[in-house]
Amino acid sequence: VAGKGKLPGEFDLIARYFAPLAAKAPGALGLKDDAATFQPPAGMELVFTTDALTADLHFLRSDPPDLIARKMLRQNLSDLAGKGAKPLGYLMTTALDDGIDEAWIAKFAEGLARDQAEFDIALWGGDTTSTPGPLALTATLIGAVPAGRALRRDGARPGDRIFVTGTIGDGIFGLAAHRGELPDLTEPTRRVLAQRYVLPQPRVALGRMLAEQGLAQAGMDVSDGLAADLGHMCVASHCGARVEVPSVPLSDAVAELVAADPALIATAITGGDDYELLLAVPPERVPDVLAAARQSRTEIAEIGVFVPESGLTFLDRENRPLAFEKAGFTHF
Amino acid sequence: VAGKGKLPGEFDLIARYFAPLAAKAPGALGLKDDAATFQPPAGMELVFTTDALTADLHFLRSDPPDLIARKMLRQNLSDLAGKGAKPLGYLMTTALDDGIDEAWIAKFAEGLARDQAEFDIALWGGDTTSTPGPLALTATLIGAVPAGRALRRDGARPGDRIFVTGTIGDGIFGLAAHRGELPDLTEPTRRVLAQRYVLPQPRVALGRMLAEQGLAQAGMDVSDGLAADLGHMCVASHCGARVEVPSVPLSDAVAELVAADPALIATAITGGDDYELLLAVPPERVPDVLAAARQSRTEIAEIGVFVPESGLTFLDRENRPLAFEKAGFTHF
Repeated sequence: VAGKGKLPGEFDLIARYFAPLAAKAPGALGLKDDAATFQPPAGMELVFTTDALTADLHFLRSDPPDLIARKMLRQNLSDLAGKGAKPLGYLMTTALDDGIDEAWIAKFAEGLARDQAEFDIALWGGDTTSTPGPLALTATLIGAVPAGRALRRDGARPGDRIFVTGTIGDGIFGLAAHRGELPDLTEPTRRVLAQRYVLPQPRVALGRMLAEQGLAQAGMDVSDGLAADLGHMCVASHCGARVEVPSVPLSDAVAELVAADPALIATAITGGDDYELLLAVPPERVPDVLAAARQSRTEIAEIGVFVPESGLTFLDRENRPLAFEKAGFTHF
Repeated sequence: VAGKGKLPGEFDLIARYFAPLAAKAPGALGLKDDAATFQPPAGMELVFTTDALTADLHFLRSDPPDLIARKMLRQNLSDLAGKGAKPLGYLMTTALDDGIDEAWIAKFAEGLARDQAEFDIALWGGDTTSTPGPLALTATLIGAVPAGRALRRDGARPGDRIFVTGTIGDGIFGLAAHRGELPDLTEPTRRVLAQRYVLPQPRVALGRMLAEQGLAQAGMDVSDGLAADLGHMCVASHCGARVEVPSVPLSDAVAELVAADPALIATAITGGDDYELLLAVPPERVPDVLAAARQSRTEIAEIGVFVPESGLTFLDRENRPLAFEKAGFTHF
């Protein structure tokens, strides 16, 4: 059982770096088994989500390994947040390229450990292989939500208010900042923005409260861009939406960029990777949703209303509709 | 939302080829959502397993796409069989290389559909992306077993009989046959052997019966090679094993190869990819296990016994111990 030179053998690697991440999951059997067992909690529905990440497509190969690990988890945690689920555990596959050494793995495992602690999840199982191609990672996350309470995309009704958490556009501008673009920003501002791309904040706590208390008619996470994801929600719900663009919450950095070039608001609204929540809230539930947001310390903003007519309208400060060239992010 | 030239766009691809595979899983929400929901059956424990497959490492890129799909499922189904679980569903990620066209996807989906029908499972969710590297696939399978009944590796006790299903060595010699090696075999024999590599037969029905009826002290699937996997079972169970090599069941093709070169028995016993079951059966349960095998139409053979002393002994026809150079398959 020889290693690849730079790396210990598969079983040693798992025992040294990954098995400790599974210590709190008895069904993971110390990662010594081909499969993990899990006793589902009574009265709960499970929620599953999976993502495949390839180096230099979905993250930069040169990124710090701990941050690659955490972003991988957080993207998926955001999908669980969008269903209102409590995260439980995950399975992970790693196809390691030739340049990966033991220090890289150690740092990668450190990132996993950190977000496992932050989001109270454990590693349940996985598969570790090598690849002649680019480093490739997948994570499958499992969460639980009270049966029948999962947030869905198809529940928005005309008259429901549109809410989003956090700020919009940090994903796409954060990527540009992370790549060292956006030279007009000051260095601290650029760094804050890049950090938002590298380490998004999945809105797990608020998502869970919304599902448990039945506060949102529809909910999902914003990952393909606000415009595209709102479009998805409208199509699923057989309605349309009208967004007041000046109400869309922007970070200071993105607000600064948009102030300098107002056309960039379209980039913010169509860009991907925000990992915020998008919600349809009946008017009478608005106070409860605001209370839940306060309680979970989540920024939230009302940005418009669902309407009976299909289609999306984005209105500027003078109530003129904006047109976007690009509907949203797709993977190819 | 433009495609990559050869391919329709991501959403079209999913709608056309993958969504039909999710039709029987209401929680998959037509693959239009970021996550799937699933109501776990009462009294059951869930079993999870995942595998990452990279073209030309784990399968040949030139293999028929339907067979690539089916082998991907079957490898994981074999892990579920090794736990005695009933397969329920799966999540899949596909990182498509530049050469993949719509016909490839159509055929790949056809293979998935075929084995979904054969093993009564549905697609629950996934992620479809492109990659500049080799085609990469992962599948995460979910199964269920009566709570507390999952087969484990650590239950073998001295005196338990060692059983294996099917035939051993077809994985490694089947790969050679599939690559067009083994010129001494007749073409029909070579083809049968290659087929065993390309399309293994996970022993799901027998695995389920063993778990449900509590017939095996320990059980797992043989995927890293009989010697390595028996070693894993012995280490987990704190015992050893003695195998009568002439009792190890061989296919006609492998028997022919071993007859011509007796040293090849070591290759059969240490080679990977057999996807058979390995079981520890107390003597008083042997008749029940044989009955379950008959009922599930699974070939099964007793090949030895677990012993108190740690370590594996493989005895030839003259009761002399064999030595193997290679302990088993690892991924690097």
